[in-house]
Amino acid sequence: MKFIHTADWHLGKLVHGIYMTDDQRFVLNQFVELIEKEKPDAVVIAGDLYDRSVPPIEAVNLLDEILFKINVELKTPIVAIAGNHDSAERLSFGSSWYKNSHFYLTGKPHNQFHPVHINGVNFYLVPYAEPGIVRALLDDDTIHSHQDAMKAVISKIEENLNPNEANVFVGHAFVLGGSTSESERTLSVGGSGCVSHDLFAPFSYTALGHLHSPDAIKHDKIFYSGSLLKYSFSEAKQRKSVSIVEMEDNGAFSVRYVSLKPKQDMRELEGHLEELLDPSFYEKEKLDDYLKITLHDEGALIDPINKLRQVYPNVLHLDRKVKLTDMKKIQGFTSIREEKKSEIDLFAQFYQEMTTAEFSEDKKAVMSEVIQNVLVEEGAK
Amino acid sequence: MKFIHTADWHLGKLVHGIYMTDDQRFVLNQFVELIEKEKPDAVVIAGDLYDRSVPPIEAVNLLDEILFKINVELKTPIVAIAGNHDSAERLSFGSSWYKNSHFYLTGKPHNQFHPVHINGVNFYLVPYAEPGIVRALLDDDTIHSHQDAMKAVISKIEENLNPNEANVFVGHAFVLGGSTSESERTLSVGGSGCVSHDLFAPFSYTALGHLHSPDAIKHDKIFYSGSLLKYSFSEAKQRKSVSIVEMEDNGAFSVRYVSLKPKQDMRELEGHLEELLDPSFYEKEKLDDYLKITLHDEGALIDPINKLRQVYPNVLHLDRKVKLTDMKKIQGFTSIREEKKSEIDLFAQFYQEMTTAEFSEDKKAVMSEVIQNVLVEEGAK
Repeated sequence: MKFIHTADWHLGKLVHGIYMTDDQRFVLNQFVELIEKEKPDAVVIAGDLYDRSVPPIEAVNLLDEILFKINVELKTPIVAIAGNHDSAERLSFGSSWYKNSHFYLTGKPHNQFHPVHINGVNFYLVPYAEPGIVRALLDDDTIHSHQDAMKAVISKIEENLNPNEANVFVGHAFVLGGSTSESERTLSVGGSGCVSHDLFAPFSYTALGHLHSPDAIKHDKIFYSGSLLKYSFSEAKQRKSVSIVEMEDNGAFSVRYVSLKPKQDMRELEGHLEELLDPSFYEKEKLDDYLKITLHDEGALIDPINKLRQVYPNVLHLDRKVKLTDMKKIQGFTSIREEKKSEIDLFAQFYQEMTTAEFSEDKKAVMSEVIQNVLVEEGAK
Repeated sequence: MKFIHTADWHLGKLVHGIYMTDDQRFVLNQFVELIEKEKPDAVVIAGDLYDRSVPPIEAVNLLDEILFKINVELKTPIVAIAGNHDSAERLSFGSSWYKNSHFYLTGKPHNQFHPVHINGVNFYLVPYAEPGIVRALLDDDTIHSHQDAMKAVISKIEENLNPNEANVFVGHAFVLGGSTSESERTLSVGGSGCVSHDLFAPFSYTALGHLHSPDAIKHDKIFYSGSLLKYSFSEAKQRKSVSIVEMEDNGAFSVRYVSLKPKQDMRELEGHLEELLDPSFYEKEKLDDYLKITLHDEGALIDPINKLRQVYPNVLHLDRKVKLTDMKKIQGFTSIREEKKSEIDLFAQFYQEMTTAEFSEDKKAVMSEVIQNVLVEEGAK
């Protein structure tokens, strides 16, 4: 039995002011071609089909079109869940009808843990849910964290799970061992959003969404497929692929990864302005990629962004590399949360860390007035 | 062959600050019971399923639940189109799958005019479309008005229509002869949104949505079903029903109307405050109806709305009946568009029509300054 594991399509995503719909369509068309070629028994989409609860109409049209091609035209069963970016209810509309053609979409958290059976594999669909929702659904007041919630859900699943069969968990969660990137909003502070990998021991394969890199976890039975595309510069060096899983009836499996080629890559470039604008340098570059450029130049530059965009039309972000000139900076930021300091003292510390100039009494007077005004407006004083 | 014609559900409607979802669920449950009893061959929903392009989640859940009951549980085919309040694209998501279970939903305007055949009747589905959209779809530059657009669409339909069969047009339009109510936003000024009834001559029955009363048009072959509920006080005296149509294979038909009972009626009440608060009066009233109350009292009243709400909890609107004391008012408003007047002259005319006081030089000076400020801000002067 063969299935393709993907997740985190984030249709409707806006990156640095650019709607990625064309880029997403480009890659999804390749995905459809891959399905035509591989003829899998199922496609698994582990959440975050959309980037937000009310996606733009172009994203709605694109998802409808792609899922129709996969499910109706290519007659490939689909197993999909809602992620934290999807609106469980809006995504769920119509899902009762989709089942007729073997498109199993579980948007809303539920307390029915029967698997979907496809060619000898049991798929357990667990959409993203806040702990409070699971607490109410399972009527279990001991559930407070994502860890508690997932543990309770998996206990329920285990009641009827046959460990000798092929069992696939489809979920959208931050499983410990993973590493976040800036395009995945931090769900909770201090690790309470995390779930331990131990919980997934009952399953032959755990197909996750949420973290955007297939390398976000190293585990022999738990996998992130990674996102469809690079959605932030922190993902510039990540590989992007879908996972093709071939599974025996006893749950033994092999995985291989197939990369999808983006219309435009997202990557970082650095150097001096003059170098980057030199034809002998840029003639080897793919100029229309989405770029974050870091300039090494010191001192003033006249309108560097427009000069760069004449060569590289899709510069999305421009940075300057500031040389760290004293040991204090090399040691990195001192934590400013150690002690309760006044606003002006915090600012003085920040100023000293960020500049080589003195925080004079004149400057202090100006900042004190600004801080005072802000506090008055906030009603804090 | 029997079908039920309904339209203008407006799920997610907010009336005077109250979400009507509970009222809509109450009536839709009766509608489902009616279908269980009547066992029609099809249900026709002629647009405005939702009240707006991004309906609240409760409305999404309600529509999903009701259509599922009708179509999947009761195995009743559904024929539905988008109205001007629906988002054609958002409503259309998934419609390709629904066809499998004979749920034919046409959200987006299109140029394919094949009918849906159900038990000997051909249903032609024409969702709401702006003239510009139809102009582009049919590649016909002569289309400027709704009349032009509908004429062109119906000409296309006629190319393959057999007039000896039973042909039902399902549309969402303002067909001339209809009368608008305040809950249906005026689509266009001066009648250009209107469509002539002559155009629908090729059809055995024209099932319309848009106007909220089944009495909005008097025609032997063109019908509005009316809205599900009263959605404004201008509809307080309208009957609300669905139409049950029994049709022969040659298109001959009979119609009967079935009223759905609202959870709370919407109606108007008037009298003096003291009368309305008198138990001998109100003990005969259904107190929790949605009410617009018009008080006949003259002079100051202390907090009448709260006094009334202690008896009638759902007063949505309170009016005072002001006696018209001079002939000028009885004659009604003078048109202020007759000639090009200055802003201050227009205001003076308005003031004289609305009050019995004099528009003194002092008042004129104050208004002139206000008008001047507004014009400066608008950049008009």
